[in-house]
Amino acid sequence: MGRWEPNARERLAKAALDLYSERGYEQTTVAEIAGRAGLTERTYFRHYADKREVLFGGSDVLRELFVTAVAETPGSAAPIDAVAAGLETVAAEFVDREHSRKRQSVIAANAELQERELIKLASLSAALAEALRGRGIGEPAASLTAEAGIAVFKIGFERWIVAAEERTLAELMRESLVELRTAVTAGGQVGETAVM
Amino acid sequence: MGRWEPNARERLAKAALDLYSERGYEQTTVAEIAGRAGLTERTYFRHYADKREVLFGGSDVLRELFVTAVAETPGSAAPIDAVAAGLETVAAEFVDREHSRKRQSVIAANAELQERELIKLASLSAALAEALRGRGIGEPAASLTAEAGIAVFKIGFERWIVAAEERTLAELMRESLVELRTAVTAGGQVGETAVM
Repeated sequence: MGRWEPNARERLAKAALDLYSERGYEQTTVAEIAGRAGLTERTYFRHYADKREVLFGGSDVLRELFVTAVAETPGSAAPIDAVAAGLETVAAEFVDREHSRKRQSVIAANAELQERELIKLASLSAALAEALRGRGIGEPAASLTAEAGIAVFKIGFERWIVAAEERTLAELMRESLVELRTAVTAGGQVGETAVM
Repeated sequence: MGRWEPNARERLAKAALDLYSERGYEQTTVAEIAGRAGLTERTYFRHYADKREVLFGGSDVLRELFVTAVAETPGSAAPIDAVAAGLETVAAEFVDREHSRKRQSVIAANAELQERELIKLASLSAALAEALRGRGIGEPAASLTAEAGIAVFKIGFERWIVAAEERTLAELMRESLVELRTAVTAGGQVGETAVM
């Protein structure tokens, strides 16, 4: 291992996002990212396995925060309220809307990155379902509640990065959860309607 | 184009799934799949772009069926009921549980195939949201309802292929929708609880 570089991980992530944004993901090399950050390729590969992973460096932290918040919600809370508490905790981590917008544009322009983003969300959903089972929730309720939480996270996030949007991510997630409740309960109960 | 081969597409799909199941996805070549189906590699590539796509040949049909059913549900139906009608239509297409089990095992064993499956579901969700917007549903309700529908589809399907499960896919999807309704409404309304 080489000498310690202060904030190397963060500097590399910022340099990568800037370059991907300016030149495109495919046109950028690891050497260029390291150069922009004032670091070596060797240092880059100590922190990230490849060009793609530098955009997903926060995924593990996000999942851990989400799962811990769900686990620490009082046992008397309904599963969806535990998930809502997790969403609040996660939302508080997203403070730089411009950064998130930039990252989303880079991802939207590349199929490989979109796949990686879908994997991140699927892994988040699986971890959430496990945390709910840890609270004694059975299946399929745990998985369905987790999927509902991820839907709220995803749609809330998409709304948050829309140009000119001024509400906070927490506000938009709360609203999205209310909208989801309204949407799934608006219909007739199964078996009572002609449709299903 | 060569001469017409009766049911070539289906024969190739069946041969591929059998071989992936017996030898593993990575250990199987297109030449072997074509050989097992009694066809040439040339014929294979007229039907499928690569080794992966042969497992996803039904995705477009599935999406089209789902979207059409949603669009054709009477305009007075709530969005979630239109989605439920779509789920009924789609469920009726899954008649061979053993085939679905085999396919799922192959996919579960390979990260690349899991990614492709996630993309299929994301594309299904996007098409569903568009069909709901076509019914005059605004955002974020359209996207949230679509995500809820895909969650029910995914979890219902996972339950359907569990060993010894005897209920139909339609029954399990209906149950999953009821469970989802219960799960998201069980909590306190946002703003009224200490949790959120």
